[in-house]
Amino acid sequence: MSAQLTILGYNSAIPTVKSTPTAQFLQMCERYFLIDCGEGTQVQLRRARVKFSKINHIFISHLHGDHCFGLPGLVASFRLLGREQALHIYGPVGIREMMETIFRITETQRGFEVHYHELSSKQSEMIFEDEKVEVWTVPLDHRIYSNGYLFKEKEKERKLNMREVSKYKEIEVCDYHNLKKGKDFILSDGYVLKNEVLTDDPEPPVSYAFCSDTRYKESIADIVHGVDLLYHEATFLHELKAMADKTGHSTALEAAMIAKKAEAKKLILGHFSNRYNDHSVLLNEARTIFPNTFLPTALEPVEIG
Amino acid sequence: MSAQLTILGYNSAIPTVKSTPTAQFLQMCERYFLIDCGEGTQVQLRRARVKFSKINHIFISHLHGDHCFGLPGLVASFRLLGREQALHIYGPVGIREMMETIFRITETQRGFEVHYHELSSKQSEMIFEDEKVEVWTVPLDHRIYSNGYLFKEKEKERKLNMREVSKYKEIEVCDYHNLKKGKDFILSDGYVLKNEVLTDDPEPPVSYAFCSDTRYKESIADIVHGVDLLYHEATFLHELKAMADKTGHSTALEAAMIAKKAEAKKLILGHFSNRYNDHSVLLNEARTIFPNTFLPTALEPVEIG
Repeated sequence: MSAQLTILGYNSAIPTVKSTPTAQFLQMCERYFLIDCGEGTQVQLRRARVKFSKINHIFISHLHGDHCFGLPGLVASFRLLGREQALHIYGPVGIREMMETIFRITETQRGFEVHYHELSSKQSEMIFEDEKVEVWTVPLDHRIYSNGYLFKEKEKERKLNMREVSKYKEIEVCDYHNLKKGKDFILSDGYVLKNEVLTDDPEPPVSYAFCSDTRYKESIADIVHGVDLLYHEATFLHELKAMADKTGHSTALEAAMIAKKAEAKKLILGHFSNRYNDHSVLLNEARTIFPNTFLPTALEPVEIG
Repeated sequence: MSAQLTILGYNSAIPTVKSTPTAQFLQMCERYFLIDCGEGTQVQLRRARVKFSKINHIFISHLHGDHCFGLPGLVASFRLLGREQALHIYGPVGIREMMETIFRITETQRGFEVHYHELSSKQSEMIFEDEKVEVWTVPLDHRIYSNGYLFKEKEKERKLNMREVSKYKEIEVCDYHNLKKGKDFILSDGYVLKNEVLTDDPEPPVSYAFCSDTRYKESIADIVHGVDLLYHEATFLHELKAMADKTGHSTALEAAMIAKKAEAKKLILGHFSNRYNDHSVLLNEARTIFPNTFLPTALEPVEIG
């Protein structure tokens, strides 16, 4: 398993006894990312048995309360639990002022640094990169500045085919690095051993895209093209398309249209209006366009790829 | 029943799966007061089946996160539920800046007014009064400026003794008001009917005091003297008195000392350190000094008086 998503909450607007607002926990190549942080997220993280100290990167889509009101409490709890390592928070411009005002007035001292990565671009940009993973923004169209996030494993190294490799005594351990990088091996007699003989294709890199909150926006499909799993908000049924447009949200049909255009492998819907008690109507609408659509299930990990 | 307390949460510092931080809902003479508002309070209010629209007055003891991080989300939910009536928030200086910064950055529009009553006095003062109820601050001693709150019914009108009143044709309905106020009635022949013959004593007014977070502070007992129910924090056992002093908290023994000195009728402890799994040790310590002490029970209404 190289990536696993745990949806912590997916309801819209008002927390209820049965559901919590938007928050997700993503593991990818032993990296641990929190996406959005509605009120109650830290308790959901406990229910999901996530060690708080694993989380070093938090991505906030937009500064509506149901996506960020759990953040001050989570950061305060990090402190109380003795955190020392730095925390990176990615989100719209304003997130630093809001958080630092809260921390100043509540006298929340911290024993660790918080690095704010404030976003304002309307173009997709890479905001995180290490040797295994990249994170890109997915500019959305909401009432307020909003980004989705695309999490991508990088291309992995090729796998050594040891049955072939061991046939050649000239290939030493120190050569493995170049083989994994895809290079051919030239024997001392000048004979070229093709890389594809010595190595196998690696596992394909996996990717996950989180897109909430947003109106239908076609460019999302281009940015997340080929994604393994797409989470796209579907606040309304398409019969309420006018209300979706007005409030800056999508319909289930539109979420499916994005998934189809993006050639996503799988779609999960979320952020449903409280008017729907039975979410299967939203699921059924999306499946008319994109059959591999699913409803979210809180706290049940989903394997990606 | 003229007063009823519902404890919504009473743990200290970090929300857990089983418990929520400080928040209480108090009904007194059909007035509805929220006291403190830790993260998750709005969900606890739902569990307690409280209609959000009843709450017009919120009292925040101090601006540590575990006593106020649920407030932005609650106010945002008020808006989403179509609230129109004004909301009064009482709390330390700084609460307005914090709340208004959050609302500005999260673009939380409101369809109702929020009146902030910012507190800075170190003397007890009356901060709310109507024809039936008074609310007084109880200055506390914590790491940060902190107030408890004393909720007092006013003296009630005397009750007409209709068996006696109906004996006198001269006493008309328009005279009842003065009788309830305690005045004697003078018959036309000059004979004075003593008020205590025509009326009975009213129910005694009830009172409730919330005191958290604070070090042991003797003046609390004077301010809340004779209170029917005292909620006093008891973060530690007395063997950790040095830690209590250092962190600005009380021990269970100290809470009981305040209750005894105040001649309170009943004491409920709360705000226990997470180090105690079994709260009965705190209860037993307090009962050595003040036998009528109880542990809090979330969501179970307690009658006062």
